Order: sequence, then C-alpha cells, then structure tokens
Amino acid sequence: MGGIADVARAASVSKSTASRALTGAGYVSDETRARVRAAAEALGYVATTSAVSLVTGRTQTIGVVMPALDRWFFAQVLEGIQDALLERRYDLALYGAQPGSDARREMFEHFLARKRFDGLIAVGIEPSARELERLVSFGKPVVSVGGYDVGTNAVSIDDAAAARIATEHLLGLGHRSIAFLGGDPDGHRTSFGDAHRLEGYIDAMRDAGCAASIQQVRSAVTVPGGYGAAVELLGDRRTRPTALVGVCDEVAVGAIIAARRLGIRVPEGLSVVGIDDHAYAEMFSLTTLQQKPHQQGRAAVQLLMWQLDDPAAPTHRIYEASPLIVRNSTAAIDDDASAIVGVGR
Amino acid sequence: MGGIADVARAASVSKSTASRALTGAGYVSDETRARVRAAAEALGYVATTSAVSLVTGRTQTIGVVMPALDRWFFAQVLEGIQDALLERRYDLALYGAQPGSDARREMFEHFLARKRFDGLIAVGIEPSARELERLVSFGKPVVSVGGYDVGTNAVSIDDAAAARIATEHLLGLGHRSIAFLGGDPDGHRTSFGDAHRLEGYIDAMRDAGCAASIQQVRSAVTVPGGYGAAVELLGDRRTRPTALVGVCDEVAVGAIIAARRLGIRVPEGLSVVGIDDHAYAEMFSLTTLQQKPHQQGRAAVQLLMWQLDDPAAPTHRIYEASPLIVRNSTAAIDDDASAIVGVGR
Repeated sequence: MGGIADVARAASVSKSTASRALTGAGYVSDETRARVRAAAEALGYVATTSAVSLVTGRTQTIGVVMPALDRWFFAQVLEGIQDALLERRYDLALYGAQPGSDARREMFEHFLARKRFDGLIAVGIEPSARELERLVSFGKPVVSVGGYDVGTNAVSIDDAAAARIATEHLLGLGHRSIAFLGGDPDGHRTSFGDAHRLEGYIDAMRDAGCAASIQQVRSAVTVPGGYGAAVELLGDRRTRPTALVGVCDEVAVGAIIAARRLGIRVPEGLSVVGIDDHAYAEMFSLTTLQQKPHQQGRAAVQLLMWQLDDPAAPTHRIYEASPLIVRNSTAAIDDDASAIVGVGR
Repeated sequence: MGGIADVARAASVSKSTASRALTGAGYVSDETRARVRAAAEALGYVATTSAVSLVTGRTQTIGVVMPALDRWFFAQVLEGIQDALLERRYDLALYGAQPGSDARREMFEHFLARKRFDGLIAVGIEPSARELERLVSFGKPVVSVGGYDVGTNAVSIDDAAAARIATEHLLGLGHRSIAFLGGDPDGHRTSFGDAHRLEGYIDAMRDAGCAASIQQVRSAVTVPGGYGAAVELLGDRRTRPTALVGVCDEVAVGAIIAARRLGIRVPEGLSVVGIDDHAYAEMFSLTTLQQKPHQQGRAAVQLLMWQLDDPAAPTHRIYEASPLIVRNSTAAIDDDASAIVGVGR
C-alpha cells in the first residue's frame, strides 16, 4: 500500500493537492480529483481518519437531522445529501428528531454537544427556543432545508408562492369553494414550510375576494392522513368544496383515493392540486407544483462545504424553482354539470 | 461542568460503571443507566469522543448500508435502528448503496476500509463476490436485515414461508390462475428476500398442482411499478388471472389502483394479496402478511451490540413472525359470477 507521497507522485500533483483531492477539504478541480483518486486506487491508498483529522482538524462527517424518514420529501433530500457527501468522501451521521420525542431531546442535548461532525444539515426542522440556543452554541455551520431560516444558510422552494400559484390555478378555472387540506391535527408534524403554504393559500383566496370560503382541514401529512380527512370532508355533498389544495402531494393523492371511493369523479366533480411532484403524482394524473428535493439536498451540501472552506462566506438563501405541472386532476368548474349531478343523484 | 468521577459519585456507582452507562459499551441495567444519565445531565457532563475512544477502543458509530431510502421497508428499518442506537448513544453513519451505483462502489471500496464504525448493519443487500470479500476483510461485526445471511447475524421474516402462505390463502379460496407480481425488470433492485418470496409462491403453486399456471410478471418494486405492470397484465381479459400475489404491499397497492382504473372490482373480479402490512394497506383494505421492519431494525442493533460485547457470541438468525391479516382484497372465486361477466361484457 502506497503513502500520500506515492499517490501525489503518480498523479503528478503536490502532496497537499493530493490530500485535498482525497479528503474533499478545499478546492480541487474535478479533473485533478479524478486523477488523484485513480492513482490512490491503483496504489491501494486509503486515507486514515486520524491522519486526515490531523491535517484538516475535521471529523469529515456531516450530521443530518430530520423529523421523519418515511416521507418522500425527506427520503429524497437524504439521498441528495448522501450522494453529494459520498463524492466528497464525507460520512453522513443521521439523527431522527420527531418533535416531542426522546430521540429529538437526545439529539439537541447530547449529540450536538459531542461535536462529532463538522457541520449540520437540518431538514424540515422548526426548532424550539431551547433548541435554537443549542444550535447556536454548537458553533459550526448549519444549513436548513425546507425549514426555518433564521440566520443560517437555507434551501427550499418558496412555499408561500407555491401554494399561492396552486390556489390561483384553481381560481383561474372558476373555482370559488376551495379548501386547503393538510396540517397535523396535533400540530406536531406541521413543518415550517407547511405553515407558509397555508399562508399562500389564504393570501390568494383573500386577494380573489374569496375570504369567506377559506377553510383549512387538518390531517396528518401522509397519504392515509389525506384520505381520512377527505372522506370526512367530501362525505357531505352540501358542504363539499369544488376544489382542494393539498399541503403536499401525499395528502392530495389521499384525497383523490377518497374521492374515488365516494364515487366522486376527478376532475369532473372535484379538482385537486398538490405540491411536490411526488413519485406517485403521474400515476394519479395529479396537477402539482414541482420541487426536486434531491437537488435541494445536494445544494445544502454545497452551501455547507462553502462555509467550511470559508467561515467568512456570506449566508445564502436558495429558493428552488417550483413550476406548475398541469395534469388531469384539475378542470374548469362546470356549473351546469354540477347542477345536473345535484339533481340527478 | 463535572467530570466522570463527579457523575459516578452522584449516581453512587463506580467510574467504570458510569462510563459504561454513558457510552453504551458493556452491560448496565436499565435502572442504573437511567440514574447515571440523570446525574450526568444534572452536572452538564458530556462524554467527549476522544475520551470515550481511549477507554473503549470504539468509535461509538454503527454503519448502516441500504440500497434505497425511499421504500417503506427501508425507512422503517432505519427508524428502528436509529431509535435503538440513540438509546445507547451511538451514532449512525448512513451509506446509500444502490446496486451498480458509484455510491455503492465507494462504500465497499473506500468507506469500509476507513473503519470509522464499530459494526455494520446491511439492509436488503445482496453482495457481489467482491463485496463479500471486502465485508470479510472489514473484520468487524455485521448484521444483515432482510438480506443475505451467509455466516452473519441476520434478521428477517421467513420470506419463502410468507409468500407460500399468501399463495395458499388464494388457493384455499378456489383460485387457480394466480400470478406473482414484482421483481425488477433489470434485476438490479431485486433483493435477496424478494427472490425467496418468488420461490415460496412457486412451491405453493406446484404443491397444489397448479404448476402450469405459474406466472411471474416483473415490475419495479414500487407502487407505480406495480401499477404499470398490472395495467398491462390485467388489460387483456382472456389472459387475466383471477388473483395476484404482490412481492410486497407497494406492488399490490399499485395493482389495486390499476384494477380500479380498468373497472375491475377488487375482490369480486380480482383478489390481491401483499406482504408487509404497509402504512397504506388499511386504506386499500389489502389482505397481507404482516411484518414489522421497525422491530427488525431494533433487533439488528441488539444482535450487533451483543457481538460487540462478546466477540465469541454465536451467530444468530432471527425470523420475525409474519401473520396473515385478512382484509377485503381477497375473496372466494365465484365461477358463476365470472362466467356471467365473461358473457356480459
């Protein structure tokens, strides 16, 4: 097995460049990194942790904290972070932090203090005052994805704008009775972004003179959650809205499944729009605002590495674009048809 | 901030017991651990990594490698592992390892060699010969969940038995034309467990004298994958089976969505059974074999810790029970009804 000097010689670069290329600490061009890695591989060279730490003063580990793993958004962000970290040969230390859980308390009280990572990516986290205090005393770079953005680097879509566009799409199709579906019953899992989406919906309704029709129906932010809430909401034809904005695609898909079960045709009897462009969106012909959380995860790593390399770098706030994808779950309201259905059944 | 000696004194235990209680290395009763932790918290004591490593020779980190993060099974296992590790104050280092990916190659070639974890939990991994060689030379405890079990500790359901019971449930209802749905078209994402499930189905069909009806329809192991394959399979009434065994609930749910779209009633026109008891199973009234991957994740940590504490401990193979949950997606075949439908449409 060769040493770093052998690797540097084989790749025709300096030892420090070889070290940067192998550890991911500091800038190296893609071409150089590829060459150094090929040389290291040919020589069977593996940078040992202790040696790397001595050179860089880093743990070469990034902590990722998220409240849930079993939602599409979080899994996608995590994959994006993972991919970007692997390219830089950083380890990913994962911490679950469901609001109110022991695990979350452990995370903020114990694991942060242990400082076993160089920086932290917080996904969909809305920290309490106590938790914010802990984050500040952590004293290392923090990037927020789809969560709070008080003074940290942050990546997300513009949640309020996305929900506003979704609502305005329905308003433009003639709908006036539009409900907003989603938001956890006990408030525990409602994320920062979800609250902004509700605001965007409310603003659009107010601006269109539909303030009286504003209605939020709470539900767990999952497919079964949206399903359960929609069965209840849609069950009574007299109070049934003509359209729904789902807080995310999972809730919107749940509503479509509920509508089918109740014999309500989508989009003829009910228009549904979501936010996400989830893996299931196409299967349900769901009109939605598209986001790419995988890319958000990659962007978060980029921002974190930037700040690690240059602690004086300015704080960045990245808004990912979220274009409207019109599929077949939304349609212009047909007053005659709904009148006929009202009489006919 | 107090030292370990202060913590030990406050909790009325020896320093080594206090250390074990705080690091999770070695046996301490739950009662003692709780007392020591309370004392440590009151004193603001946090074990630093380097100090812990000096005492125990451990990194206090467990590596977890899995091919996908966005499937229910993997997310659930990961949450179970996370919960159990947090209780022991171990860190979780996560590695994605989609078959054939650069990330997977990096994992086996680079991260394993770096040995930054005390043990590894491999979830749904079917290693190549080269990868197995790397795992062996890793030289630390490995536990497999829902994957291969060649000489390592392993946790899973009995996949072959689960698929056999699912198939026999349909055979018992009078079905003879039963297809098996699932298994990736390119073979990349077909896990070890999925292959065993296919075997269980084939064995049950053979034993029932239905060898001629054996039919595997490949699909990606996701809801949209099952949906797409089922649309094709069920589209032609002349060759349509009367029942389906899904390789997992996601595929089975996709088939139910496809059936609804094609106007085929479940269970009257098609019986569907899955394996998992996925979060969506109840919403679709899916008959399924229940497994609890969260518990499998916890059990994997238990086995790993056991082996860390006692390297001479025997290798264990845990089969989690997977009871049949009968809901409303399966029914006795009604020869008259199907004959009438055959004529009528």
